[in-house]
Amino acid sequence: MPKTAINPTREQNYPLWYQEVIKAADMAESSSVRGCMVIKPWGYAIWENIRKALDKEFKRTGHKNAYFPLFIPKSYLEKEAEHVEGFAKECAVVTHSRLEQVEGQEGLVPAGKLTQELVVRPTSETIIGESFSKWVNSYKDLPLLINQWANVVRWELRPRLFLRTAEFLWQEGHTVHSTADEAVDETLMILDIYADFCKDLLAMPVLKGKKTESEKFPGAVDTYCVEAMMQDKKALQAGTSHFLGQNFAKSSEIKFQNKEGEMEYAWTTSWGVSTRLIGGLIMAHSDDDGLILPPRVAPAQIVLLPIYKNPDDAKKILSYLENLKSELENITYHGENLVVVLDDSEATSSARSWDWIKKGVPVRVEVGMRDLEKDSLFVGRRDKPHKDKESISRDNFVSEIVATLDDIYQNIYSKAKSFLDENIVNIDEKEKFYDIFKSKGKQAFVLSHWCGCPECEKAIKEDLKATIRCVPFSSQEEEGKCIYCGKSSKMRVVFAKSY
Amino acid sequence: MPKTAINPTREQNYPLWYQEVIKAADMAESSSVRGCMVIKPWGYAIWENIRKALDKEFKRTGHKNAYFPLFIPKSYLEKEAEHVEGFAKECAVVTHSRLEQVEGQEGLVPAGKLTQELVVRPTSETIIGESFSKWVNSYKDLPLLINQWANVVRWELRPRLFLRTAEFLWQEGHTVHSTADEAVDETLMILDIYADFCKDLLAMPVLKGKKTESEKFPGAVDTYCVEAMMQDKKALQAGTSHFLGQNFAKSSEIKFQNKEGEMEYAWTTSWGVSTRLIGGLIMAHSDDDGLILPPRVAPAQIVLLPIYKNPDDAKKILSYLENLKSELENITYHGENLVVVLDDSEATSSARSWDWIKKGVPVRVEVGMRDLEKDSLFVGRRDKPHKDKESISRDNFVSEIVATLDDIYQNIYSKAKSFLDENIVNIDEKEKFYDIFKSKGKQAFVLSHWCGCPECEKAIKEDLKATIRCVPFSSQEEEGKCIYCGKSSKMRVVFAKSY
Repeated sequence: MPKTAINPTREQNYPLWYQEVIKAADMAESSSVRGCMVIKPWGYAIWENIRKALDKEFKRTGHKNAYFPLFIPKSYLEKEAEHVEGFAKECAVVTHSRLEQVEGQEGLVPAGKLTQELVVRPTSETIIGESFSKWVNSYKDLPLLINQWANVVRWELRPRLFLRTAEFLWQEGHTVHSTADEAVDETLMILDIYADFCKDLLAMPVLKGKKTESEKFPGAVDTYCVEAMMQDKKALQAGTSHFLGQNFAKSSEIKFQNKEGEMEYAWTTSWGVSTRLIGGLIMAHSDDDGLILPPRVAPAQIVLLPIYKNPDDAKKILSYLENLKSELENITYHGENLVVVLDDSEATSSARSWDWIKKGVPVRVEVGMRDLEKDSLFVGRRDKPHKDKESISRDNFVSEIVATLDDIYQNIYSKAKSFLDENIVNIDEKEKFYDIFKSKGKQAFVLSHWCGCPECEKAIKEDLKATIRCVPFSSQEEEGKCIYCGKSSKMRVVFAKSY
Repeated sequence: MPKTAINPTREQNYPLWYQEVIKAADMAESSSVRGCMVIKPWGYAIWENIRKALDKEFKRTGHKNAYFPLFIPKSYLEKEAEHVEGFAKECAVVTHSRLEQVEGQEGLVPAGKLTQELVVRPTSETIIGESFSKWVNSYKDLPLLINQWANVVRWELRPRLFLRTAEFLWQEGHTVHSTADEAVDETLMILDIYADFCKDLLAMPVLKGKKTESEKFPGAVDTYCVEAMMQDKKALQAGTSHFLGQNFAKSSEIKFQNKEGEMEYAWTTSWGVSTRLIGGLIMAHSDDDGLILPPRVAPAQIVLLPIYKNPDDAKKILSYLENLKSELENITYHGENLVVVLDDSEATSSARSWDWIKKGVPVRVEVGMRDLEKDSLFVGRRDKPHKDKESISRDNFVSEIVATLDDIYQNIYSKAKSFLDENIVNIDEKEKFYDIFKSKGKQAFVLSHWCGCPECEKAIKEDLKATIRCVPFSSQEEEGKCIYCGKSSKMRVVFAKSY
């Protein structure tokens, strides 16, 4: 019998371990539709928690939700040159409006050819721009702060559950401002919301920074991002926030009359996070026994597991746990009621316990007759080894549960933070730099000087598959030499391999 | 100057009045994409309230949310004969995976032809069935109770905002059971949830009943529905719940091992409501001054309108209202905190007040210096004439607000209920029956006998555009004669024109 619940382990085969964690936690599965996934209830409930928390922040900062068409006329996509260049290669094209039986042919064939092809939105700047051009007339209409929760489609050659799927769920914010400064402020405020969210809800520390020209969003002036480190020391872009300048305002004719009565092009932003956050969450914290969930995103914080041998005991224990469940569910944790599962399924108590370990539930509570008689609970925590369980009096458990969950959060976060800190290194020698990205297991976030020239960036990408994840906000001005060409540089950037 | 805020009035031109209400309340607009609408923040916020309330009910009754692919391979749709017949005529067909520049041609052209065409889901029985066939193996896996919040696409020849749009938002429940009885129970339980929701949240009374063969969902054994009456006395199908028998289980191979160890086909259901509920909500209650919203679905229950002439007064009044706003927002109404808007926009106080009347906000509170000095508020209610405003002491207003909102709800509901009751008529003479549906303004829900024969149903539809909305649960067995052919009949059914 293997010693870990997940096989292979992270050490043995990280990509396969990732898939097995998802399977063991019953979060998602591939569908038979090219690159599309099915998000199963446990995975979707995590997305619901992500959505709820972010939605609250967006609303708190004055944004309103709306909904725009799934389809984008081909001509709209063509309006912004860089944008269409970026998305035309991977979009789903709708060409017909029905299926018909045709004599002599088996099955149904497409019919009702559309006069203009429609593209399933890969992102909505162009279709939302069309609406905004009508909504914005005067400076009084600004700022316009809109968010949309939606599905988008971008074909992926090598799909991976949550990380890269043809269809994914996301939110896309789209805002319009009367000045460039205000639009940049918005872009950066949203980046802070993303960073705080990653830290507070996902227990995932991130680096904030700016993308290079070659890595930015097609059509943006500047793309800002939050980058997280996975346990294989690869980077995951967790969210992006784009200052679009007047590019989309010009292609979509978003103009407003300023206070002086003159017409001006507006300044726009867009920003988004997606279901790939769940992929990041998995890879940031999970271990060889499965998923580890920070309490605030966990679909359930606590699972109650009755252990009994006969119907009489069962009755007593279940009634005891029902009572405990009600009490716990009335406790609020960071503004939300605790969610508690009582698992009385037919499986053996060991199998049930392992199920919930693999699903990453923060706290497991076992109660048998001996516990009941002592009015105490046998408690396991997902941030500790699975055998490391403690007997706690019922009263203490209840009165300390909020502190316990906070402690679990803190442990998960601290572990990820230490891992990130330990694996960010300053490198000034090209040989060492190449060695790090070429040697298996040596990976890191490498802070090196870069001259700013796209050719050096490209050469490194081709040689090592490492890219500039961002120019981090934390970087200080500092004299140095480009890690590739040796020319003078003023600042370090973060190189890493990435998802 | 016209006497009503909405022109034309309901009396003058009902369909145009409907469009103008939506425009005046800033709820939605047509997009440039064939048949697709843009749901603006005020309309979307109503959908969010609908979603939240229903989601809670689905979860309370054991359902879990999940998410399935947007695309359905053509071959899946073809598996169930009636089903594909019903949807092939109006589906968006994806045939290519990218757009390319081709020499000599202007713009981009579709490229990367798919080996099998994909259809944008018009409903998800077939693609969800594919997953369910893998998830269900044993009676221990049942019941499987899943819901999905998603967008779907069905081309519409004559789109109308909210009522009939090519793309719409909805929820679709899909469940699997080990017996037919249990599946039927599920179908009917959901119908009750829909009916209660329509009553309690939308203040919209509905008739519950069963569809005839010709009106049921393509592939269903039985379709149950809730039907509401609009102010033009037409019917709106507000929600449907389908008992699918073993039809989809057979076409998708959803089988389970029963307790005796034998393999059996499972029994499935599906059920849904969509953004068309918002169309129903508008047409059920709104008047010639615009939208009227029952408090529980209103994006805001109360709007505060400061009235002042100079900056000094403004400061005092705004501070007074900020304080009132905070106090009100801490009050819960049916489990949710009250939402209060403070509108200090530049428009005149009359224009602002009219804005919120047209948006249907249940309670308007105006405060000028004289009110402030008396510590009283000038309060208007959307269920009463707009001039019918009352001065109420601040303390009384706050302490009575929950009762006031319940009273508003009750008034809106009672009005709709009386209207429905007054306009359901028993008709036993063919001439009268024809007269009702042929005369302008005579419309009704007509309870008449029907022999059960599809030909009579079809003839009436062709002659009068009236259809059998349902065989109502409330119908008693009763001897009678078919309104069309005169043959004997056991029960009355509801005929009406419909949206």
